[in-house]
Amino acid sequence: MDAYGHINNVQVLRILEEARIIAFGAPAGTGASGTEEGAGTAGLEGSTGRVSLFSGIADGVQALVAEHRIRYTASLEYRGVPVLVDVWISSIKPASLTMDYLLVDPVTHEVCARAQTVLAFLDTETGRLVRTTPQQRKQLTGLLGESLFR
Amino acid sequence: MDAYGHINNVQVLRILEEARIIAFGAPAGTGASGTEEGAGTAGLEGSTGRVSLFSGIADGVQALVAEHRIRYTASLEYRGVPVLVDVWISSIKPASLTMDYLLVDPVTHEVCARAQTVLAFLDTETGRLVRTTPQQRKQLTGLLGESLFR
Amino acid sequence: MDAYGHINNVQVLRILEEARIIAFGAPAGTGASGTEEGAGTAGLEGSTGRVSLFSGIADGVQALVAEHRIRYTASLEYRGVPVLVDVWISSIKPASLTMDYLLVDPVTHEVCARAQTVLAFLDTETGRLVRTTPQQRKQLTGLLGESLFR
Amino acid sequence: MDAYGHINNVQVLRILEEARIIAFGAPAGTGASGTEEGAGTAGLEGSTGRVSLFSGIADGVQALVAEHRIRYTASLEYRGVPVLVDVWISSIKPASLTMDYLLVDPVTHEVCARAQTVLAFLDTETGRLVRTTPQQRKQLTGLLGESLFR
Repeated sequence: MDAYGHINNVQVLRILEEARIIAFGAPAGTGASGTEEGAGTAGLEGSTGRVSLFSGIADGVQALVAEHRIRYTASLEYRGVPVLVDVWISSIKPASLTMDYLLVDPVTHEVCARAQTVLAFLDTETGRLVRTTPQQRKQLTGLLGESLFR
Repeated sequence: MDAYGHINNVQVLRILEEARIIAFGAPAGTGASGTEEGAGTAGLEGSTGRVSLFSGIADGVQALVAEHRIRYTASLEYRGVPVLVDVWISSIKPASLTMDYLLVDPVTHEVCARAQTVLAFLDTETGRLVRTTPQQRKQLTGLLGESLFR
Repeated sequence: MDAYGHINNVQVLRILEEARIIAFGAPAGTGASGTEEGAGTAGLEGSTGRVSLFSGIADGVQALVAEHRIRYTASLEYRGVPVLVDVWISSIKPASLTMDYLLVDPVTHEVCARAQTVLAFLDTETGRLVRTTPQQRKQLTGLLGESLFR
Repeated sequence: MDAYGHINNVQVLRILEEARIIAFGAPAGTGASGTEEGAGTAGLEGSTGRVSLFSGIADGVQALVAEHRIRYTASLEYRGVPVLVDVWISSIKPASLTMDYLLVDPVTHEVCARAQTVLAFLDTETGRLVRTTPQQRKQLTGLLGESLFR
């Protein structure tokens, strides 16, 4: 909570980061197993389960946030229960991936924020962006939903 | 995760704060209802349920952290599942309350940290500490456990 | 630092929040004096000093973040010296105010992020947005710069 | 700021972490240069300058927080100016190092917190703690001050 008694907008970004990792797994080379056992704490609308999107990327490749957009529509109150986050893929480009989120109050079910993250994959050895493979794009197509931002 | 790939010690303090609020409720004048509906995400060893410890304090009284102690015994890995925290009352004094915590890896069940928080209750109008009432002390006695620190 | 050894994107948002408050003052009803004495730690391009933008708003009015955009162009390294942030007003509308930021590495002087925040002012008693006054708009016009986002 | 309008106790720990890194350098393998240029934003009581305590440790050795103690004596207000932190070595043991801190309000000069961090150095390859060398202990002796905790 910040001085207004709301969840501060900086913490909202952290909540979205956690939702992204719960839904798609932690990037390769970071985190420990446990994700698989945790199913049920986060859902992925329109999908049948979790996707190890990040854990499948090669060693030495980093999943970097290239862009964020967040539009707050209602204050998120601090409650003793987890907030609801819907997260899905909204765009697949040769060198980037876009995810959209709905942040929903767990008690009133009001939408508190609409958000979007563009991820790019960087090969730390060559310093170049890594293009998504046809196989990855095919896998992700099933998770594709509409974008909240034009 | 910090640069070592572990949950940073600053974030551990935040996790303990959340555990305290989930177990005992948000302080009066802060947060919104929702705690009651959330039972099941946190347990209180030796108790039969949650206690609205903080929500019962009077308006204008703040629950302030007077002291923290944390001893880290193992690195806490970032996993996609919630960490386990046991929290209980370890000491009841006229003008303060002490809580102890065990932070437990949810997959290995290894104890990652032992911690303690001393809380004092401040009347913001008089600027004086508020003493716990006999009724509060009686209610808390049932939650009393051994301290992890001498 | 996060697991990649960079300043995590969540913390970047906090840095922008601090830059905004250093440049324009803490919102009324929050924070304590001290800002005035601190001049020199933050600059406002094109201005001759700080502007008490937020401290001048009426009691009971909250400055709320309505929207954020951030575009990361380079990793921000953790260094022992403060990062540089340029912040200016990029748009003035009847019921909102937009600020743009450039986040600059203090050693390499590389631009690490371009960002934008839309602020709205909410009257907590009426629940309505507060319109900026002609006097405020006049004061802000002198700080107006170009937007980094179309 | 938290819901009480003070600097939240979790953020105080982050401030202490930053003070430690500004005073003694970032651990080897993390962060980028820049510390040297930044002198003046942090002072080390009783010393004539910064000490590259952490940057001198060998590759593969991590500086881990083994213990924290914090005693809050006054609320730290949010101000637009940096808080003052004094940090010094309070104990040197074969396999650990203790630092003490005074967190001081930059305007009232009131002491807001007394704190202590015990650091241990872990060789990630062997999984064993690394002992401080006689040379390190000699270097640190000059920075040794009294402990705030018994």
